[in-house]
Amino acid sequence: MMKRFVLLTPGPTPLPPEVLAKLGEPILHHRTHEFGELFRDAIEGLKYVFRTKGTVLLQCGSGTSGMEAAVANILSPGDAALVASCGVFGNRWTKIAKAYGLAPAHHEEEWGRAVEPEKFRRTLEAAGKDVKAVFLTHTDTSTGVACDVRELARIVREHSDALVVVDSISGLGAQPLEADEWGLDVVVAASQKGLMNAPGLAFASVSERAWKVIDKARLPRFYWDWRTYRASLPNGETPYTPAVGLVAAQVEAFRLIREAGLENVWVRTRVLAEYTRRAVEGLGLSLFAKAPCDVLTAVQLPKDIDGEAMVKALRDRYGISIAGGQEKLKGRIVRIAHMGAILQEDVDQGLAALKKELAAAAPAVK
Amino acid sequence: MMKRFVLLTPGPTPLPPEVLAKLGEPILHHRTHEFGELFRDAIEGLKYVFRTKGTVLLQCGSGTSGMEAAVANILSPGDAALVASCGVFGNRWTKIAKAYGLAPAHHEEEWGRAVEPEKFRRTLEAAGKDVKAVFLTHTDTSTGVACDVRELARIVREHSDALVVVDSISGLGAQPLEADEWGLDVVVAASQKGLMNAPGLAFASVSERAWKVIDKARLPRFYWDWRTYRASLPNGETPYTPAVGLVAAQVEAFRLIREAGLENVWVRTRVLAEYTRRAVEGLGLSLFAKAPCDVLTAVQLPKDIDGEAMVKALRDRYGISIAGGQEKLKGRIVRIAHMGAILQEDVDQGLAALKKELAAAAPAVK
Repeated sequence: MMKRFVLLTPGPTPLPPEVLAKLGEPILHHRTHEFGELFRDAIEGLKYVFRTKGTVLLQCGSGTSGMEAAVANILSPGDAALVASCGVFGNRWTKIAKAYGLAPAHHEEEWGRAVEPEKFRRTLEAAGKDVKAVFLTHTDTSTGVACDVRELARIVREHSDALVVVDSISGLGAQPLEADEWGLDVVVAASQKGLMNAPGLAFASVSERAWKVIDKARLPRFYWDWRTYRASLPNGETPYTPAVGLVAAQVEAFRLIREAGLENVWVRTRVLAEYTRRAVEGLGLSLFAKAPCDVLTAVQLPKDIDGEAMVKALRDRYGISIAGGQEKLKGRIVRIAHMGAILQEDVDQGLAALKKELAAAAPAVK
Repeated sequence: MMKRFVLLTPGPTPLPPEVLAKLGEPILHHRTHEFGELFRDAIEGLKYVFRTKGTVLLQCGSGTSGMEAAVANILSPGDAALVASCGVFGNRWTKIAKAYGLAPAHHEEEWGRAVEPEKFRRTLEAAGKDVKAVFLTHTDTSTGVACDVRELARIVREHSDALVVVDSISGLGAQPLEADEWGLDVVVAASQKGLMNAPGLAFASVSERAWKVIDKARLPRFYWDWRTYRASLPNGETPYTPAVGLVAAQVEAFRLIREAGLENVWVRTRVLAEYTRRAVEGLGLSLFAKAPCDVLTAVQLPKDIDGEAMVKALRDRYGISIAGGQEKLKGRIVRIAHMGAILQEDVDQGLAALKKELAAAAPAVK
């Protein structure tokens, strides 16, 4: 039987047909003039979406691999660091740092809220001037929250020379971020969310200040070692075999983003986010996030509804993939993404199915 | 202008049309029943090609990422280890271990020769009983050499309890390897060579003996941490967003390999290797490898021919990608692959172009 899949998940997101078509093209060898051109286009596209004139890098791996690369390239044994988290992905910074034997100060906001600048300032001051890097999350899809990364970065800059490292894996290309203007030293992103490509590539923007630290950092790193990626850039290649097909597809996705204009994509995402939030409230449901991001809406479910069962019902009965809650939110929320190539029609289908299933569950509940 | 590309490079290799078609299909979400089934098929396919009943893992990254994962999962600070190398990729084991602060004993065979078992035995004995792991290369594409991994593993087993770790990134699926029967504790592979998929996935087989070590190992690892991959296996998923499209394509490639029968694929590759070697000698050229592998032929060029220029000429004038020499072999050899979906027709085109270019260069040379 034919089955249509509607993806309302925070990565992988649906691909534009043009990007899919690129994925189906024969593989180029990566040491060719043709790939060199593609690679340079990918780098230019990354600079465009990161809003940077600095270095941008591309590695084969998931978004988490980009986060780990940031930690491994920036920190050295014994370094003080601060993580300001508002959910699962913020907490991941701390987990990674701990895996490397570090003990970052951990500032965790109540889930559903954004990192509050004044509280953040006090934590930063308490952590002291020795903090080498502050790790932030732009949009944490576990709670559907966006942090004011610009303001947090400004506070860090007032306080010390600590590097500002931002996970914008789900945010980049979907809602405003300005690596250079906001003074973000490292921003990590991935292919499969707002950047409308299949999963498998991680990206990073790296400031000159960050390179000075990276050049001397002493955590173990080989495949992650950004110095070797930087050295390969002038040759239009990566140090290890790149995911050639994904690079070609990413260039196509960047073409589409440039064609629309990045600012217009931000607006489109915001409009769809506002639409989704209104529609969710129209169903009598409440929003989980007090500071909602534009890339995903976290929906609080009525107490008697099992979120895991709801996710399964939408997937099995309607072919619609939404996300459930993670960790302590498991079963309590569902999450509907609206970044990248997700359209209002997709959101409408997801919400219509949610409405039906809630109505069907209601008699049993009461 | 239309341009046909012939890939005779040791990864990426050309893709069968069925595999390409899978890459062009819409992306599934990875937390669905459908992806769970695909994932399980991929795991079954891996067990088939690794010839193991043990654990197999799949991670998003290049082949080198799989090598690094092996080092980071198996060793602990201060561990003694031995690398037996016969080229660039063997040496990479040592580079990775050194990046983690280890100082493995390094046994390097003269390039072009396979690791010689009796010399290896003496090195192993000199390294002592404390050696925790021995790192080998099945087929080193930098020199076109195959090592007798079965015999080397047997020697290790006679000597001590050291784990046997094999890089079969270019060999797996193309020439015989038996993870269980040969007692190989960890074998690392990648998608883009004999396994006929696009680049972006790394694979590993892991023995029960290896897990006992991995569970207690103390090098830093997060994204690489195979314990989290093992924990996700029963749910039919990976701990981080998998490269969904590449997994679907890999399942299709495994279907083709199973349809042909793995042993028949080995024979086909061997026959094409023998054909290529005879044809190269027919051109009056000599083979670089004294113990040639089946996956690639390293061709020694006449002294006056610049290998780099030859690679460029074939690529620019004929659309044919062959590989040049690496590191100290740069300019001195060219390398013609014949693994995976590479056909005799492709090799014929490559050799015909090589012949023409050699003839064209000859008057200038003489």
